[in-house]
Amino acid sequence: VADEDEVLAANRGFYEAFQKLDARAMANVWSEGHSVSCVHPSGPLLHGREAVLTSFREMFRSTSSMRFVLRGARAFVANDAAWVVLFEEIEARHDEAVVRATTQATNVFVRERGAWRMVHHHAEPAAANKTKPVSSLN
Amino acid sequence: VADEDEVLAANRGFYEAFQKLDARAMANVWSEGHSVSCVHPSGPLLHGREAVLTSFREMFRSTSSMRFVLRGARAFVANDAAWVVLFEEIEARHDEAVVRATTQATNVFVRERGAWRMVHHHAEPAAANKTKPVSSLN
Repeated sequence: VADEDEVLAANRGFYEAFQKLDARAMANVWSEGHSVSCVHPSGPLLHGREAVLTSFREMFRSTSSMRFVLRGARAFVANDAAWVVLFEEIEARHDEAVVRATTQATNVFVRERGAWRMVHHHAEPAAANKTKPVSSLN
Repeated sequence: VADEDEVLAANRGFYEAFQKLDARAMANVWSEGHSVSCVHPSGPLLHGREAVLTSFREMFRSTSSMRFVLRGARAFVANDAAWVVLFEEIEARHDEAVVRATTQATNVFVRERGAWRMVHHHAEPAAANKTKPVSSLN
């Protein structure tokens, strides 16, 4: 398996934990050996494992369901570091309210004992003109 | 000098090259040994050294002056990889037009032969509520 494929698998693991609103799986996604940081859409810079994981736990508590469609994910590897750039199409339900958004994200990973762990997530609302319609034919 | 300080210095080098509209200095900022990628505000994902450097050359050609004020820059280091998160306050002049914008950026660096070189730049327009006024007193 190429490094890039391993990184994309780790990246999918992040969105699977997110979609399942699974705080334990999310904790496993993030590095334990290195500094970590996170910028949620329209949010401040969070740093430190506890602050980052707390932000997800709080989000999961206030969310009834979350669905991601990932588009254009591309992985880049430099030795034991890697980053993925992608578009996230998000549909989140909070009780009765449904929030839909498209964000563009950079996710950074570091290889720790052979496993790619997330060290940084930065998602920002994507500009409207970057959003291409998803064809229903493919 | 702590690794974080070295990374912040490399990060400043990126904005100095940008501000001077200096394509040669910009080429020196970016890694030659690894894949590189770049997302300009409201732009697509660019990848490959040639595509990334061309994007800067074209921007420099169409810009008469560029000024950056950097706020809240924070560096994180994991072995030979590092990333900086910061706000960029940009004032760009294109002939008569002046464009002002605040973006939040993630910049990723890799240590190559002892020097930190940029491998990824991702800047997106910052949400209005993330922009704190700069105090005139400090």
